[in-house]
Amino acid sequence: MDKNQQYILAQRPIGMPDEHSLKLQDSALPEPGEGQALLKTIYLSLDPYMRGRMNDAASYAKSVELGEVMGGQTISEVVVSNSPAVSAGDYVLSSNGWQRYAVANADTLVKLDPAQAPISTGVGVLGMPGFTAYVGLLQFGQPKQGDTVVVSAAAGAVGQVVGQIAKMRGCRVVGVAGAPDKCDHVVREYGFDVCVNYKDDDFEAQLAKACPDGIDIYFENVGGRVFDAVMTLVNDFARIPVCGRIAHYNQTSLPEGPDRLVPFMGKILVKRLMLRGFIQSDHLEHLADFRRDMSQWIRDGKIHYQEDIVDGLENTVSAFQGLLQGKNRGKMLVRVAPDPTR
Amino acid sequence: MDKNQQYILAQRPIGMPDEHSLKLQDSALPEPGEGQALLKTIYLSLDPYMRGRMNDAASYAKSVELGEVMGGQTISEVVVSNSPAVSAGDYVLSSNGWQRYAVANADTLVKLDPAQAPISTGVGVLGMPGFTAYVGLLQFGQPKQGDTVVVSAAAGAVGQVVGQIAKMRGCRVVGVAGAPDKCDHVVREYGFDVCVNYKDDDFEAQLAKACPDGIDIYFENVGGRVFDAVMTLVNDFARIPVCGRIAHYNQTSLPEGPDRLVPFMGKILVKRLMLRGFIQSDHLEHLADFRRDMSQWIRDGKIHYQEDIVDGLENTVSAFQGLLQGKNRGKMLVRVAPDPTR
Repeated sequence: MDKNQQYILAQRPIGMPDEHSLKLQDSALPEPGEGQALLKTIYLSLDPYMRGRMNDAASYAKSVELGEVMGGQTISEVVVSNSPAVSAGDYVLSSNGWQRYAVANADTLVKLDPAQAPISTGVGVLGMPGFTAYVGLLQFGQPKQGDTVVVSAAAGAVGQVVGQIAKMRGCRVVGVAGAPDKCDHVVREYGFDVCVNYKDDDFEAQLAKACPDGIDIYFENVGGRVFDAVMTLVNDFARIPVCGRIAHYNQTSLPEGPDRLVPFMGKILVKRLMLRGFIQSDHLEHLADFRRDMSQWIRDGKIHYQEDIVDGLENTVSAFQGLLQGKNRGKMLVRVAPDPTR
Repeated sequence: MDKNQQYILAQRPIGMPDEHSLKLQDSALPEPGEGQALLKTIYLSLDPYMRGRMNDAASYAKSVELGEVMGGQTISEVVVSNSPAVSAGDYVLSSNGWQRYAVANADTLVKLDPAQAPISTGVGVLGMPGFTAYVGLLQFGQPKQGDTVVVSAAAGAVGQVVGQIAKMRGCRVVGVAGAPDKCDHVVREYGFDVCVNYKDDDFEAQLAKACPDGIDIYFENVGGRVFDAVMTLVNDFARIPVCGRIAHYNQTSLPEGPDRLVPFMGKILVKRLMLRGFIQSDHLEHLADFRRDMSQWIRDGKIHYQEDIVDGLENTVSAFQGLLQGKNRGKMLVRVAPDPTR
């Protein structure tokens, strides 16, 4: 049988993570104990929040310790099971991290049915990113018919779902993405009303033109130039679910002044804005509703999705770098082993 | 009969307003038309929001135009009435601004009963400041038993009410004020658990000690050093109703860098904070509940209040300067004419 291979957090990255911070090492295949299963990774999910877990600083997700396997959700196949809960050959959602094999307690695993949906969607549109979009938009964005909703990272795993749900709610949906093909895709495949490229020189003017009635909801995934432009266009009572700030995750120092925090707080007051940081795992009481709704929407063709799959565990670091740079096209996955269901 | 006197906005203040920006002028007594009443100002309410109305910049309240009488709520006596809605001798809440006399449409007036409560409370604990506290804390602060609530400008018209309502809800209430006698008063008269002076050198350490379990709600009235200290102590899921930012109202330039907006947004995300700017007039659907609850609380001795009354219209500018500098002790009022009910 195969040996195991793992990415170890060797040192905390300063700025962009690379092969110095994340080292690929061989290791022995782990042995499942009673109630446990040996799992083989088919897909490893790559998500922007992972950058924060590489830092020492306190965050909502526990830091990965130096010398530990880098964490992450996986879609895995059960190789050996010492539990009645799962059987060899089952496909499961687990959190095995950046490695080929892992042992997990069988009662932590969520079984996936390849007949219902591609198993990869368990870490995508039917998993954490889809649920993030669902909770963030519906609970904190509070979309109403006719609202203008701006979605940053519109082509990404979360953004693509946010926009499609907002369309179902009767909103005008304006995407922001970082490449012409992403913008095209978002409009053509997901039905966004318009999508603007934040790398264009006249991005701010384009965004203003795309939002003739101002902005009622801004789904914040990115920060940076997009956030600044949005803030000049927000309407009274705008809602800003704060989901991510990917433009800043690799920053190593505070931006130069002036200090814009003071006028920003003034704007919150004058415009009566609502900002709410959130993380999906705080809202699991909505998970059953999400699974029911999202499965139905996919069956009905109301939600489309795109995956960006890189082959080979050894390409994980470069794929993750690409994700932080916006090089991905949709939900980023590493296919660690062939998917027997496709 | 008396002539009228009015404060005219002569020029937009840069920094602190003074006698150059607000000029006292004599004018003729206005004549009430059909359906109108001639009103004599007894109390003029002074409130921090007025500073914003002196600016040209768009805010939630319309700017006062140059050459116009400076606006504001008043407690007035009806001198002449050409309407069945009010009679000479009635006491009414109106918005007559900084002047001795004014004509108002009778159907805009709210009659006050001196037998129920001192008429001055119509612009204080039973009026706009009290309602601001009630709506901001209950709707956006969402206080729960055992929460730690920090109230800035704790001795002011809004802060004193916020703290007392929070105590009724079973919270630990920590006041922040700018003078030892204010802090003493807040603890002794309003039952705050503790109050910290933000002018003390070790204010940050005192606040941390006063909040051993962190901060769940911060009722933001001031900005500046208090806001910065609070932000280092907020708990996950803290709620921050943004009511005012008095420390910044006279600022004429942006503070120096670094730009703290970026890490602030990161904190909103990581701590899952909720910030909500609000203004009481957007929430009039709660006004009847407020009037019922607050009247009852005052009768039951559960809410105490303090007024700071300056005599003489000609002292309005210096009183307003004092308010912006925190020199007032409680709700700031100018007694423009004797109050016949006390």
